[in-house]
Amino acid sequence: MPSYKLIYFDLPGLAEPIRLLFSYGKVPFIDQRITKEEWVTLKPTTPFGHLPILEIDGVPYSHSRAIFRYVGSIVGLIGKDPMENLAIDSVLGAMLDIREAIVKLRFCEDEAKKPELKKALEERYQRTYKKLEVDAGKNGGYLALNRPTWTDVLFCYNYELLRNALGIDVLTPYPNLQKVKKTVLSQEGIREYLKKRAPNPMKPKYELQQDL
Amino acid sequence: MPSYKLIYFDLPGLAEPIRLLFSYGKVPFIDQRITKEEWVTLKPTTPFGHLPILEIDGVPYSHSRAIFRYVGSIVGLIGKDPMENLAIDSVLGAMLDIREAIVKLRFCEDEAKKPELKKALEERYQRTYKKLEVDAGKNGGYLALNRPTWTDVLFCYNYELLRNALGIDVLTPYPNLQKVKKTVLSQEGIREYLKKRAPNPMKPKYELQQDL
Repeated sequence: MPSYKLIYFDLPGLAEPIRLLFSYGKVPFIDQRITKEEWVTLKPTTPFGHLPILEIDGVPYSHSRAIFRYVGSIVGLIGKDPMENLAIDSVLGAMLDIREAIVKLRFCEDEAKKPELKKALEERYQRTYKKLEVDAGKNGGYLALNRPTWTDVLFCYNYELLRNALGIDVLTPYPNLQKVKKTVLSQEGIREYLKKRAPNPMKPKYELQQDL
Repeated sequence: MPSYKLIYFDLPGLAEPIRLLFSYGKVPFIDQRITKEEWVTLKPTTPFGHLPILEIDGVPYSHSRAIFRYVGSIVGLIGKDPMENLAIDSVLGAMLDIREAIVKLRFCEDEAKKPELKKALEERYQRTYKKLEVDAGKNGGYLALNRPTWTDVLFCYNYELLRNALGIDVLTPYPNLQKVKKTVLSQEGIREYLKKRAPNPMKPKYELQQDL
């Protein structure tokens, strides 16, 4: 097996789904967390000036979505053909749309614009969750296919972000999506990771391990 | 072969790379272009309330990146294993970062902020092109691997957007990237498509077919 090193800040951010995916498959990886000062030195040496980076046998690869999919593959959570991967990638797109709306609200500096951004986030996630609830019902508790895929793991992290952004348990009206979360959180590698994961320096009100 | 219908507005936008990829493989597809009025009626019936949509035998799939990858697969432009797909997806991420910077500049309503956004776009694309120029040199004129992949096609469309956004031929200092573009534009299916493609209602100064 190649050696893996994940480089990111000491934050969940775009690296946490990757840490969760490695953990799902119990694939060993170095979880290198760097300071902002270290980033200044490292940045010019990276492929595109971004984190996270996944080093595979010392070769750096960039872009979180590319890394999600790669780690999803190596832990056996990918589709078996292009059609299945289309279904998986489509769910990823829906997750990232929600994340984008969360980020817009969180980093908005204009107080007057916040209610509008909050409404946009609510509409976006409700529209998405309604559709995914139906799909998860048909798929027996999985989002994209009738078996676990890497988007189920992404979904749990996305839920954690969303719950903190809105301050409510966004899953209450969605029993099938609750099942998706429960299945992921009961997976052995995920449980072990969540029990020992580094405290989030942002100190959010809700963290996934509360539901273990 | 399944039947394909691509639904989008009468614009290049997020659908054009998909049209180019279908054309590359000479795979027949219905290129349905709808009006804003038609979209009002269609929107509630779509999976996530977004365009483009690719219907495969009548089943709708959402999210442009997911569709890029799927169509890239069916036209034989995908990697043979997760590692190759990671290299491809990483280039896609770099292309989409440039597109995001273009979109920010284009839709900025605050004139005072535009110089800063233009500078960010210039830095972003130059950083990316410099890295991709080296890669394309090593790969014999291809971006992600030492053979054509679907990101080479994406790159050409991204270049068209970028050249119009900045008003200069951004490829001048990059001979290997010029080769990537030339190889894609000399491909038979792409040539045929560009010769007959619908006029862009935005009337940009530069269009890819000028270089055929």
